[in-house]
Amino acid sequence: MPIIVDAMGGDNAPEAVVAGAVEAAREFGLSITLTGHEDALRPLLSRFDAPEGIRVVHTPEVVGMGETPMEALRHKPDSSLSVGLRLLKEGEGDAFVSAGNSGAVMAGALLTLGRIAGVQRPALAALFSSPHGPVLLIDAGANADCEPIQLLQFAQMGAIYMERVVEIASPRVGLLSNGEEPTKGNALTRKAHELLAASSLRFIGNVEGRHLAEDVVDVVVTDGFTGNIVLKVMEGVAAALLQLLREAVESQLHYRAAALVLQPALRGVRRLSDYAEYGGVPLLGVAGTVIMAHGRSDARAIKNAIRAAQRAADQGVVQAIQEGLRATPTGKE
Amino acid sequence: MPIIVDAMGGDNAPEAVVAGAVEAAREFGLSITLTGHEDALRPLLSRFDAPEGIRVVHTPEVVGMGETPMEALRHKPDSSLSVGLRLLKEGEGDAFVSAGNSGAVMAGALLTLGRIAGVQRPALAALFSSPHGPVLLIDAGANADCEPIQLLQFAQMGAIYMERVVEIASPRVGLLSNGEEPTKGNALTRKAHELLAASSLRFIGNVEGRHLAEDVVDVVVTDGFTGNIVLKVMEGVAAALLQLLREAVESQLHYRAAALVLQPALRGVRRLSDYAEYGGVPLLGVAGTVIMAHGRSDARAIKNAIRAAQRAADQGVVQAIQEGLRATPTGKE
Repeated sequence: MPIIVDAMGGDNAPEAVVAGAVEAAREFGLSITLTGHEDALRPLLSRFDAPEGIRVVHTPEVVGMGETPMEALRHKPDSSLSVGLRLLKEGEGDAFVSAGNSGAVMAGALLTLGRIAGVQRPALAALFSSPHGPVLLIDAGANADCEPIQLLQFAQMGAIYMERVVEIASPRVGLLSNGEEPTKGNALTRKAHELLAASSLRFIGNVEGRHLAEDVVDVVVTDGFTGNIVLKVMEGVAAALLQLLREAVESQLHYRAAALVLQPALRGVRRLSDYAEYGGVPLLGVAGTVIMAHGRSDARAIKNAIRAAQRAADQGVVQAIQEGLRATPTGKE
Repeated sequence: MPIIVDAMGGDNAPEAVVAGAVEAAREFGLSITLTGHEDALRPLLSRFDAPEGIRVVHTPEVVGMGETPMEALRHKPDSSLSVGLRLLKEGEGDAFVSAGNSGAVMAGALLTLGRIAGVQRPALAALFSSPHGPVLLIDAGANADCEPIQLLQFAQMGAIYMERVVEIASPRVGLLSNGEEPTKGNALTRKAHELLAASSLRFIGNVEGRHLAEDVVDVVVTDGFTGNIVLKVMEGVAAALLQLLREAVESQLHYRAAALVLQPALRGVRRLSDYAEYGGVPLLGVAGTVIMAHGRSDARAIKNAIRAAQRAADQGVVQAIQEGLRATPTGKE
């Protein structure tokens, strides 16, 4: 079954999305369904010399980046986003990828696909590259206010994703807090700590902000408010440092030599906040494989998001979450 | 009046503390009272050739870094920490500096000095160096769970500190959130946003994690749980990057040239998480000037903490907070 891609979603759509889809089709031999306006997509497919296996489903409407999610969904039933999600629901594809309005993608996925039985709240699982390897931060922004049981479910869903898709056996799960001792934290995390400690997860206890860049944890569990702030702090710090380094290098005559020496380090810095590396953030907990790509996605990011979507679908992440939560008594609603 | 310094507090005490106090006395002509064990302090003062104006108040007990705050305070009334705070309370000094057990310093300050009238919760105000200048993050860890009115008070106290001590006229106050729109945030920040917008502060609205390294905000308001995590993420990211850069530079033959080119950039990276730069974190809202230095403080950090303490005392930060909160109707308990 094809991967369904919202070709009109994102700051660089449809061009970057079509380019990324063409690359994914060519490089990985994937079959892809693009939802979007035919008049915009056909010429791009010709220009990029699209291989077999890319199909277009024409949709006359587009959800804007600034629209409120509910308005967009209600007033534009024939948008590339809504149609794409309906195709997934109807079994016309294995997974759905969009770089469009993230609020609308989340709300649309929840409305169209529904939640996996037992899941209280779907969550965004952001994979980032620490110097030691991939780390998954969940929830990265879907739920600003959470209950303890929801943090436990985020941990369960995140661990399943890391095991199946990123192939980290028995991932170490940590609870983001303001101190390592179990008594540290706020009311939410102290209660969540108890639930996590009593679960069958490989729970290593509380982790602090500094641990995100150390090799101690694979899945970092937090509420969506804190998770979103943490990701953006990392992004901001990395951007500021790259700027400082660039200025330092450019102010010197030995520009080329230094730039050469710096390459590996610069790459490490950039990877820390490189959304394109993994391409997208899975929305875990909805009854379908949905990958949200960054709004600023370029072709490479779209290509990687499509690959992540295919991988999540092949590895049965949705079914695994369903079974995983069924096995946990606290996972019931 | 002297600055009172807990000479036994901190990982490198008493040596680094005495060395820092001697430097502060010599460099700024300050008068300093050290609390601590005479037998440990006298030889150090001789060794560092201490100038006039450094006095020792002998205290037989020491609070350990691992002790629980209430135990330490209850069972050790004659510790360097407790005695130092009592001296401040009794008017024997202008301010108190400690690099010791932070929980014990906070609890001790609250018990011994009490709160400024109208202040619901004292908060830690951490100053860090963004590439564009100093930014104050409040609360940096004193209160894991907060009420909206408390965030407003943190903003008021932080703005007063920035104006008086760091000399930033009319500081821009931002509320840390997961999106810039006023509707973004969790239950706490959405309510706090309303209070801040209605206040007389120069409130610029919500700020996101990435804004901490940009020149858009001077005082970043948040709860102590999120604030602590954010500071430690910055510390962790900066440490990881320094490590990557060091490895990159050392792996090359052009080591010296590259290291030279890198100096300004490295300094920028290091400053981002350099607690020694400002030396300490004021505990705002208690009825006395208290500066908490980092547990790992070296002599330079202690010297800068003592200078910050003197400055906060000279600028009347405690009185200014008292007057500022009295002027705000919502500042009442």
